[in-house]
Formats: sequence, structure tokens, C-alpha cells
Amino acid sequence: MANREQRIKAVRDKIGLIPDFPKPGILFRDIFPLFKDPALLNDLILLLVEHIKERHEKVDVIVGLEARGFLFGPMIAQHLNAAFVPIRKKGKLPGECVKVEYTLDYGTDVFEAQKNAVQPGEKVIIVDDLIATGGTMDAACQLISGMGGDILECLAVIAGVEKLKKPFFALIRF
Amino acid sequence: MANREQRIKAVRDKIGLIPDFPKPGILFRDIFPLFKDPALLNDLILLLVEHIKERHEKVDVIVGLEARGFLFGPMIAQHLNAAFVPIRKKGKLPGECVKVEYTLDYGTDVFEAQKNAVQPGEKVIIVDDLIATGGTMDAACQLISGMGGDILECLAVIAGVEKLKKPFFALIRF
Repeated sequence: MANREQRIKAVRDKIGLIPDFPKPGILFRDIFPLFKDPALLNDLILLLVEHIKERHEKVDVIVGLEARGFLFGPMIAQHLNAAFVPIRKKGKLPGECVKVEYTLDYGTDVFEAQKNAVQPGEKVIIVDDLIATGGTMDAACQLISGMGGDILECLAVIAGVEKLKKPFFALIRF
Repeated sequence: MANREQRIKAVRDKIGLIPDFPKPGILFRDIFPLFKDPALLNDLILLLVEHIKERHEKVDVIVGLEARGFLFGPMIAQHLNAAFVPIRKKGKLPGECVKVEYTLDYGTDVFEAQKNAVQPGEKVIIVDDLIATGGTMDAACQLISGMGGDILECLAVIAGVEKLKKPFFALIRF
């Protein structure tokens, strides 16, 4: 049985590197090669779940950010017997929503969650594939905190930042 | 143990109905309440996986359509020990992509898949949450067939159409 470092290295080795995407000068980390290897994908999910279980006794809700957070969130939630709740871009979620506006390189964007999707006091972990600058993850935290959710941690497979406003963990740093 | 009809009814009863979304006159089927009930979500995935295993000896690839197909696709793929491959809207996938243009109510849109994501002859099932008119699913089929993929079936939780160009199955009809 490979140890944790070896298991993380196997994940890291599978991440694609695509230069100049989505714009010149950016080296894009492509997680989709991981999804072509079902055993490795399973182990990646287990690595994240083991991290969560070591640190938190109980998780009520996994929140996933559109769209790549949708790939990991429900699988993690299933392992924890937790609910999964989506955060989406403006206008994509039906019914009454709560909103937060956040700043991008140029202009602003809006995140939404369905009203009452997270109840006050519920223990929440927010999941995305990659945290680059942390801006979208901080916005997601603001949205969930505004609903009264107790954010235990933000979680990503890959991160380029050192810190967020809330505690966070990434399996792989660049 | 509930029988298959009872299990499907439990799923159906959990789907939200939101009138006039995304536009007046449309009754939107909201699958997100299912994701707040981890045991029911697990059973929904099992219902889909049982259907697949009864009909197909081997599945190589589950293809999921952005964004809600991402919620189901990886979990189904894990149960089948199959790869998961995404189809996304134009400009979202890194690296060389194959494309297909399709018609919406007003104008056209473009679907992309990463080049070589599906190999010629691979057995493929395409997954989405809901098939309304079938237009996006037919476009996805065109994209995968163009790569040489052998489409066994299109699969959805909910469908409003009776037929597609390729064989299809939905757990729930409206």
C-alpha cells in the first residue's frame, strides 16, 4: 500500500499542464485526466475524505462551486453521508436565491445559492477543484456565512494561494 | 426492501417543481433537493447503474454534459469502473478540442470535448440530469460519434421527450 505522499504524487502526476489557457501567460492545471483513471479518481476522493475525517467529527453539508466543484462535491458528500449544495453563477438556480457579488480581473460576477439550502449552525465544507487567487472561494464563504452556515474548511485539489479568509486545505500546491 | 417502482417514486417525490423558470410558462424540475438526502441520492445512482448493468456488458466511458451532468456522471462512472469525460460549452475546456454547433430557441451554441478524450470503438453512455427537447443530447451524440465513440445509450434522470436519434433511457417521464 502506497503511503500518503506517494498517493498524492500519483494524483499530481496525472494533472495536465496546458500553457496559455484561458489566456496567454497562464499555465492551466487540467484535472480531467484524473477522471479517465477510475481507480486514481477513487483514491483522490479518499485522500480528501480522510483529511476531512481526521479533522472534523461531523460535516452536515458539502458545498460545491459550479462547474468543476460539481465533479468532486457529490462524491465527497456521499462518503460523509452529508448533503450536497451547489453554488452557481447568476440566474442558473431555480427558486428564491441568496446572492453575493464578487470582483474578477475585469468587472464583477454574482454567485447564488438556493434560499435555506444551508441552515443556521450547519457544519459546512466548501469544495472546488482549484483555488487560484482565492477570490471566488472567499465569495462563496461570504454567501454561506450569510446563511448562518458554520464553515469548517475550504477544500481544493490544487491551490496557488497560501491563505484565505477561512481555514483551507489543498492536496497539491503550485 | 422497496421494489424498483417504489424506489423510483421516492426519487420522483423529491424533485422540486418551480413554475416560470427559467422563463414564464416553463415548469422547472429541480433535482437539487435529491442532493440534500444522501441515502436517496445513493439509491438514485444505484437505480441508474442497475439499468446500465442489465443492458450493457461493458462501458468504457461515461460522458457528462456541463453542468448538471457533472453531478451524476463521475459517481455513475465510479460504480462501473469507467472513465468520465466532460462535454462543456465553448471555451471552457483547455487544450485541443473537437466542437459541434447546435440550435437553441434563439441562435446557436457550441459544445466541446477534449480531443482524443474518447477513442474510436469505446463504448460510451452520455448522461445528463434532464432531457427536455433532446436538442443538446443529440448534439452531444454527434460530437461523440464524430470521435468514433460507440454510443450505447443516452441516460437521464428526467425526460420530456419520447425519442432521440440514439437509444435513450430516463428514470422519470413528464
